[in-house]
Amino acid sequence: MKILFVAGDPKPERWTAPLQQRLPDADIHVWNPDGAAVEADYAIVWNPPAELFEREPQLKAIFSLGAGVDKLVSLPAVAGGLTVVRVEDAGMSVQMAEYVLYHLLESSRQMDLYRAQQARGTWKIHRPIRRQDWPVGVMGLGQIGNRVASTLASLDYPVNGWARSPHQLADVNTYHGADGLADFLANTRVLVNTLPLTEQTRDLIDHHLLSQLQPDALVINVGRGEQLVDEDLLNALDEGQVGRAVLDVFRREPLPSDHPFWTHPKVTITPHVSARTLREATIEQIADKIRAHADGKPVSGVVDIQRGY
Amino acid sequence: MKILFVAGDPKPERWTAPLQQRLPDADIHVWNPDGAAVEADYAIVWNPPAELFEREPQLKAIFSLGAGVDKLVSLPAVAGGLTVVRVEDAGMSVQMAEYVLYHLLESSRQMDLYRAQQARGTWKIHRPIRRQDWPVGVMGLGQIGNRVASTLASLDYPVNGWARSPHQLADVNTYHGADGLADFLANTRVLVNTLPLTEQTRDLIDHHLLSQLQPDALVINVGRGEQLVDEDLLNALDEGQVGRAVLDVFRREPLPSDHPFWTHPKVTITPHVSARTLREATIEQIADKIRAHADGKPVSGVVDIQRGY
Repeated sequence: MKILFVAGDPKPERWTAPLQQRLPDADIHVWNPDGAAVEADYAIVWNPPAELFEREPQLKAIFSLGAGVDKLVSLPAVAGGLTVVRVEDAGMSVQMAEYVLYHLLESSRQMDLYRAQQARGTWKIHRPIRRQDWPVGVMGLGQIGNRVASTLASLDYPVNGWARSPHQLADVNTYHGADGLADFLANTRVLVNTLPLTEQTRDLIDHHLLSQLQPDALVINVGRGEQLVDEDLLNALDEGQVGRAVLDVFRREPLPSDHPFWTHPKVTITPHVSARTLREATIEQIADKIRAHADGKPVSGVVDIQRGY
Repeated sequence: MKILFVAGDPKPERWTAPLQQRLPDADIHVWNPDGAAVEADYAIVWNPPAELFEREPQLKAIFSLGAGVDKLVSLPAVAGGLTVVRVEDAGMSVQMAEYVLYHLLESSRQMDLYRAQQARGTWKIHRPIRRQDWPVGVMGLGQIGNRVASTLASLDYPVNGWARSPHQLADVNTYHGADGLADFLANTRVLVNTLPLTEQTRDLIDHHLLSQLQPDALVINVGRGEQLVDEDLLNALDEGQVGRAVLDVFRREPLPSDHPFWTHPKVTITPHVSARTLREATIEQIADKIRAHADGKPVSGVVDIQRGY
């Protein structure tokens, strides 16, 4: 079988060498923008160029290096029936859980305050945490949201979960669908967005949604920048409805240098690092998926194009 | 039964009122330094004065509001046979686990670096975490150490545990005794001290111990300040053997304003807040223990005076 690796890594051999080890029979090529067709069966992609699908119309499936496939599902080739397979977990869920936890603790355990006190040479003890004051609401209960919710629940935070369809999770109060959203938000102070980007979730976190959260809310966005209405968040921060926001994803990345998020005192930003693709686990998983697909066996992680993820 | 409450809280009724609710038959008094003997059966204490034991020699047991009882076991009355009971967990273990986790993530996930980047307006992505580069070693495997170790293991960190006697914990490599210490340290980069203060653990974290840790170590002390040799830690930081230290406990508290820890760039200090006594859970537990003791039933948390905890 022929596999084409299409990602902007300047050292593609870091991916293709271990892939070759796991699939010794495969004929593996690296995408060359100026090259000729290789007639690949499968492509492994990260932000692939449109030319890929013109040059390689015979592709049987493409394997995304990331969990978010919103850019892929809108491709014409995918609308035409090309199978998209996304990486599942591969070390990303646990990273997301710890990213969310760190930033929750920064607020709930007043770590920012104690850091500032050290800088001023001040020894002062503040009130201890009351966990019931920090109910968390996780939007999206796929593998990532699930891990985030269960990790926070294991540390005794009250945790709510919301998703499009019903889910059951131990120690998590779950809500679903448009009908369940208001109750979910009313019981949530710490909003964590892990939803996939679809037409239903675009611009979901707007003034109306933010106004339904508990007062002095903490908003953590690790989903997609397009799900958050930046201006509405800034207004909610300035009005005090939201006390702090932690943003890892943005409508434009890198975040433009003149964007107010950079310097807002209540906004923490990170450069899309909440969960990184881990090469070893990802290659291992994609190799297994390619072999299963080639052998006609079932493959998990196939994207439902209608649903969008 | 008569109970005497002996703690420096300016509002002792915050403790005695809920205690009275749980023990309606009890005759509850608050310690008055200038008062007379009340002939109490039990005392609930936090840093009690020596006069307590002279004035109330008939005490059957004292109940410590904290998990650390090192100051109590050295009292003459305790050497003379007075029973000491310590609070167990009561919401403290989970606080300790999240304190340790927060500070581990600060380093392992480079949160300090991303915070500094935001302040400079820099969008730059660094290498993702490799969990195998951050093996944690938890010293002390009582309820607190156990919870710390299992929480870190649940987030896929390699975790070692060390204690005086053998322990078995899921997903944790355990070592014990003087013989097991060298192997434990050789497999540890992130050292977390949760040990009780005893003659065996005093000054334990010294130059010799620190030199056996993996390079660029992270030292987190949530045990007792007397277990750490301050000068040896400062030397190890300056030599680079230890990359960062996070200290919540000190030989003198508040930490004297001229102590080098305050301003050392590689030292994070907090004012003994890693795990706070939670009033509600603590009162509930102590009330249950007092009732059990009065009824002649077994009580958990009785301190082994020889062992020291």
